[in-house]
Amino acid sequence: MKHYLKVLSVALTCLLLICGMGSEIFAQTTLADVKKNRGLNDDDVLAATKTFMPRGGRDDYFAFVGTGNSGTMIVYGLPSMRIYKYVGVFSPEPWQGYGFDDESTLMLKKGSLDNRLLRYGDMRFPALSETDGKYNGKYLFYSDGANSRIALLGLDDFETKQVLMHPLFLNAFPGVAVTENTEYVIQSSEYPTPWDNKEADPETEFETKFKSGITCWSFQDTQEEAGTGHHIGRMIKENSFTLELPPFTLGYFDTGREASNGLLVGLAAYKDQSYIYVYDINKASKLETIEVHDFMVIPFQVAIDNGVFALIPVDETPHSVKVDPSGKYFITATDDAMVFDFAKVKAALDQKTYTSQSVVNVPTLDEKSLLHGTVKIGRNVIDNAFDYRPNTVYTSAFDDKKVVRWNYETLKVESAIDLTFKPGQLMTPQGNSAEPHSNYLTVVDKEGLYDNMIPIGPARPSYQHLIDISSDDMRDIYTMSLPQSNIYGSVSVLRTTIKPIIRYPLGTNTRTGEISRYKTVAGQEKIEREGNRVHVFGTLIRSHITPEIVEVEEGDVVTFHLTNLERAEDETHGFTVSTYGVHGSFEPGKTASLTMVADRPGVFPYYCTEFCSALHLEMEGIFLVRPKGYVASPETEGEIKLTLEQLAEYKKNYEDKIVVINQTQDVINSVVTYLKDNNYQNYPYVEALVVDALDQLELAKTAKANYERYAAEGKWKDAFLWAEQYWQYQVKTADVGLRAKKLLSEEISK
Amino acid sequence: MKHYLKVLSVALTCLLLICGMGSEIFAQTTLADVKKNRGLNDDDVLAATKTFMPRGGRDDYFAFVGTGNSGTMIVYGLPSMRIYKYVGVFSPEPWQGYGFDDESTLMLKKGSLDNRLLRYGDMRFPALSETDGKYNGKYLFYSDGANSRIALLGLDDFETKQVLMHPLFLNAFPGVAVTENTEYVIQSSEYPTPWDNKEADPETEFETKFKSGITCWSFQDTQEEAGTGHHIGRMIKENSFTLELPPFTLGYFDTGREASNGLLVGLAAYKDQSYIYVYDINKASKLETIEVHDFMVIPFQVAIDNGVFALIPVDETPHSVKVDPSGKYFITATDDAMVFDFAKVKAALDQKTYTSQSVVNVPTLDEKSLLHGTVKIGRNVIDNAFDYRPNTVYTSAFDDKKVVRWNYETLKVESAIDLTFKPGQLMTPQGNSAEPHSNYLTVVDKEGLYDNMIPIGPARPSYQHLIDISSDDMRDIYTMSLPQSNIYGSVSVLRTTIKPIIRYPLGTNTRTGEISRYKTVAGQEKIEREGNRVHVFGTLIRSHITPEIVEVEEGDVVTFHLTNLERAEDETHGFTVSTYGVHGSFEPGKTASLTMVADRPGVFPYYCTEFCSALHLEMEGIFLVRPKGYVASPETEGEIKLTLEQLAEYKKNYEDKIVVINQTQDVINSVVTYLKDNNYQNYPYVEALVVDALDQLELAKTAKANYERYAAEGKWKDAFLWAEQYWQYQVKTADVGLRAKKLLSEEISK
Repeated sequence: MKHYLKVLSVALTCLLLICGMGSEIFAQTTLADVKKNRGLNDDDVLAATKTFMPRGGRDDYFAFVGTGNSGTMIVYGLPSMRIYKYVGVFSPEPWQGYGFDDESTLMLKKGSLDNRLLRYGDMRFPALSETDGKYNGKYLFYSDGANSRIALLGLDDFETKQVLMHPLFLNAFPGVAVTENTEYVIQSSEYPTPWDNKEADPETEFETKFKSGITCWSFQDTQEEAGTGHHIGRMIKENSFTLELPPFTLGYFDTGREASNGLLVGLAAYKDQSYIYVYDINKASKLETIEVHDFMVIPFQVAIDNGVFALIPVDETPHSVKVDPSGKYFITATDDAMVFDFAKVKAALDQKTYTSQSVVNVPTLDEKSLLHGTVKIGRNVIDNAFDYRPNTVYTSAFDDKKVVRWNYETLKVESAIDLTFKPGQLMTPQGNSAEPHSNYLTVVDKEGLYDNMIPIGPARPSYQHLIDISSDDMRDIYTMSLPQSNIYGSVSVLRTTIKPIIRYPLGTNTRTGEISRYKTVAGQEKIEREGNRVHVFGTLIRSHITPEIVEVEEGDVVTFHLTNLERAEDETHGFTVSTYGVHGSFEPGKTASLTMVADRPGVFPYYCTEFCSALHLEMEGIFLVRPKGYVASPETEGEIKLTLEQLAEYKKNYEDKIVVINQTQDVINSVVTYLKDNNYQNYPYVEALVVDALDQLELAKTAKANYERYAAEGKWKDAFLWAEQYWQYQVKTADVGLRAKKLLSEEISK
Repeated sequence: MKHYLKVLSVALTCLLLICGMGSEIFAQTTLADVKKNRGLNDDDVLAATKTFMPRGGRDDYFAFVGTGNSGTMIVYGLPSMRIYKYVGVFSPEPWQGYGFDDESTLMLKKGSLDNRLLRYGDMRFPALSETDGKYNGKYLFYSDGANSRIALLGLDDFETKQVLMHPLFLNAFPGVAVTENTEYVIQSSEYPTPWDNKEADPETEFETKFKSGITCWSFQDTQEEAGTGHHIGRMIKENSFTLELPPFTLGYFDTGREASNGLLVGLAAYKDQSYIYVYDINKASKLETIEVHDFMVIPFQVAIDNGVFALIPVDETPHSVKVDPSGKYFITATDDAMVFDFAKVKAALDQKTYTSQSVVNVPTLDEKSLLHGTVKIGRNVIDNAFDYRPNTVYTSAFDDKKVVRWNYETLKVESAIDLTFKPGQLMTPQGNSAEPHSNYLTVVDKEGLYDNMIPIGPARPSYQHLIDISSDDMRDIYTMSLPQSNIYGSVSVLRTTIKPIIRYPLGTNTRTGEISRYKTVAGQEKIEREGNRVHVFGTLIRSHITPEIVEVEEGDVVTFHLTNLERAEDETHGFTVSTYGVHGSFEPGKTASLTMVADRPGVFPYYCTEFCSALHLEMEGIFLVRPKGYVASPETEGEIKLTLEQLAEYKKNYEDKIVVINQTQDVINSVVTYLKDNNYQNYPYVEALVVDALDQLELAKTAKANYERYAAEGKWKDAFLWAEQYWQYQVKTADVGLRAKKLLSEEISK
């Protein structure tokens, strides 16, 4: 092999010399040199090429992972495997102000026991919203196993929109599934507990007081608000219902689709015996319910009497059970994989074809008569994933260090890939939907040992591998590190199915999707006091925080309601008050509120915490807490007085800036002419940029009016700062305009 | 170019056919196919090959980044740019139990105002500990700008070891620097505030009551505890001192080295004039101090009288000022880069060669006479970074979208790279030390716009690029996404300089480095009650949490002190109690404590939250909170009673397991024979694995004694579970042994 490499290297070099383009093609060093220096072979080069993302390149898929114990979601791209976001879901996240600003804190508290702010979550198997069994790219759902909460995220802005605490369960399985049109989001308990939250003796009262259950959370989507790209779906507690069950330990579950839509299959254990349960949600949704803790419950006996729930005893404990893309089969992750025929299972349930044995009064079905067949896979099987190829499934065998590709119709093993690690959970893009898509398979590495990975102290990241499954010869092409996580399940969808927004309508409370009552526009900033309650209505825009000084009395309860006035892309501002531990993130258009008790007198600078422009450091102000008993006088608020010398300096700066402004305007004018002359509105992406540019100019009008007014009044500092701000709008406009011009010229030349 | 690609593709194919190895080399599809499918050119393939990390490959460097506003540190590797860790520093982190367990919470509270748990930090420019100006790989320091805290991290386990709140500042510059042998860690204020934390009027009392300052935190390292790899360095508040200054706004600073060691240079602004300050720390450390808030302060006038501080007025506001690797120069990040001669500056300060003008009584030095020279770089220069090449510096020009390489001795521009984005902060591995190292340069992208990067909602990650600077022709080879961060500065060190540990000595409080008083070994688990205070001394080990039931009374204050008994690599256990919002991460050997008020009666499952083995789900127990007034009776604690049928089942399971145990032992014996026969102890890494394996076996002894005892007593469930546990130790031992054997045979065959 070494000899061959040398031959290839020489051959390549010759080839390059022949072509006379060596230095141009292989840059500063040749491919052969890099391979030699880094100890890579041709397989490595091929693998590298499969995952490399050039500047400006976009991934084919988004993937969503629950971190397990950090309570946040990770979003990454395939095939680049770059992580794009951590999003706060079940625990506060300081960078995004999640669980810091009042809006998200209120949402989290509503979704907790006793109105407490829970700071931890255990989330593992997410589900994407579906239309006709296919991912629609609108919402994502997570279950918090530790605290039995459920969360809804919007994928237009990748934010958490709703968190609910289960009114009955004290503990949940950390996964969810949805029905074919997202009518229901399904969550189950994991370890059984009493439902009335009261103590019960686990030894003597286990059978009588401990319960398990399965909940169908009713989900209601709404139309997109015109032109905003903003969807507001919600889980409706009042329309949701829970099936009461004996004290089973419940595990992984999945929903049927097409002919099996409305059926749920999942894992249950009771007294060291494993079962697969079958639950007819459609039929159950029509049964009479009783109210327990203000929640609709189908009593156990009602469910049994109506034949909506049964158990299939199985010899081997499955690690998962998944429904195939067609909805015809469901397959267990067991060493001897069991392929169940959904039609037979449904018929048996409908016709109550029970065996003679029941389990704590739950009827059982006969495994053998429901099987399409079984296939011997390997030792310690962990998970299955489906491919776009007909009837193809991939199965991980932990102890054998391999993933097996097999056909669940013909029950034949087709091929396998030997791995260098013990494989765990599997994921194929869209593999959990009616429309699997991709040539990729991700495999969780359940070890992460030092002889495989980089030494980094006793606590390790999770690792997962990307497998190229595009041909018979499967290849392990990338080892991904997932920090701050304990990865189990994940889901992935075509990137283009998701339609992310760029900005919010001005003044949006992003958690409710509504315009906030605290929305503040430029010039309307104010401070309202009522007793010891102070409301600051402020704005954020390059490069000002208004107001510049907020003066309060020790003991006041102060809320900063801030609105980011920006309309430009990626113009996020952050806000913190020194030593008060508050933080907010304000994306363009967002309004959020930060409340604090001013319990320490002193001078506390506040400032913008995101690099927002070259004048970022100007975005600061002072939170002045006067000692108890001090009465604030309005005239102490305002700007620091300037010396005559400073005033002259600002005047000069102002005049210099006006010159620059005029020059910049010339550039804008020329761009505008070009765009108009070339019918930019015929090119959607170019048009979007122009809209962005025009938004900037609209804002600029106010800045211009301000600098002209302050200049007329001889207030040169303010005049300069507003002129500076006007110029920043101009520059952004020019910048966006030039990008639009470049794109347009490229489009035209095509 | 297209034609050329086709030629190359054909040529390569021919080459492969000639060599007859086509399918073997390029796997399932050819390189040409992948390039065509993914739209990549040869430059992309070369770039991909430069950053790709094959399975088991290790990065050359670790890089450390402050997230800005999430209060956590990010660790990634160069050149793979994979993120390995998020580490909680200034804000709680649920996954690691940071700010959740009592040990880390106590540390965070000690380092805050009023003993509050601050949940947010703003950290940007870290510094690594140094010996003789070179990185020693032992510690890392961060400043929290928002709350003026300072943090120390240990790099043996990548954990935060100390957090201190500044006793005077209410706000700090979010960067630090260290002296040549880490005698001092330096932190300055950013925005001026009064020091007595009392209110003062920013208009009328700015000159008299507002101050700025620079603090030298005294750092004391200790010897490594024998054999543990564990270093315990600490900042000592009592030996630290602050220089009192007029109300300057202070910015980026850097320390001298070699001839300029003990000098500090930094940025200051006062009334719209920019300055570089020079501060002689060596001389200052010998001056008389006064005590303010129990902290040593050098009064302003004392400093001035002794000539330890002066200002250099500059026309252009620098974005940073950095000392070159030799300590001979410091260079400003300005459009006209200023190269100052450190020797001249030191002489001027020593000899008090002041100009006639002073700034609020601070003497000034004359810029022109201190310069080695200036070089015109570009528009809106942001940052500098040094290379291993003599006298070479890289400078980013934001508005020009380029990085310029130039020589600061000859003052000549050498080359530049045009970028597709506006560049911000720069970093070269070890570039901030006396020993710059690498062919890589990272460049922060201050925009992150959608036409360059992937659309992902209004809030974006930070992006930075990896530039290959190995030749004259610099190349942008990778675009990295840094989620949950607002990246500014970073530092990087050779991976091999850091010596991470694999496990802790049993019972370690990882924050203090000492053995915890709550360390609990197997068999010594207990529950202690005193009034309403309950201490649980528990253990975690595959696959048990002991005790299995903890019964308390409503209102009790309960602390779980848990010790992870594991000695194996990567055998972390997590722990949570349902709905109580607590979480701990227990790496092998760690002892940590979780305290909660049992204020809700009920049955709350607790469980291990990390996948730790195939029997992970067995690691659970019950937190039973009896209603107020209930008196716990000791006999209700224990395991759930089994039916005779279950008992027989466990007996059979036990006997089956004993068979497997004997088979596994045969494997171990053969491995041990091989290792001994081949003198494994001569190969350090192999020996480390053997030690790991032996640690496992040592623990296994207890498990074996237990299963034999329980079997003798006819307690078949316990007997089976301990046999299962023994077998898990065996498997781990066998597994590690086999890895050792494989490595050893590879070593021998070399």
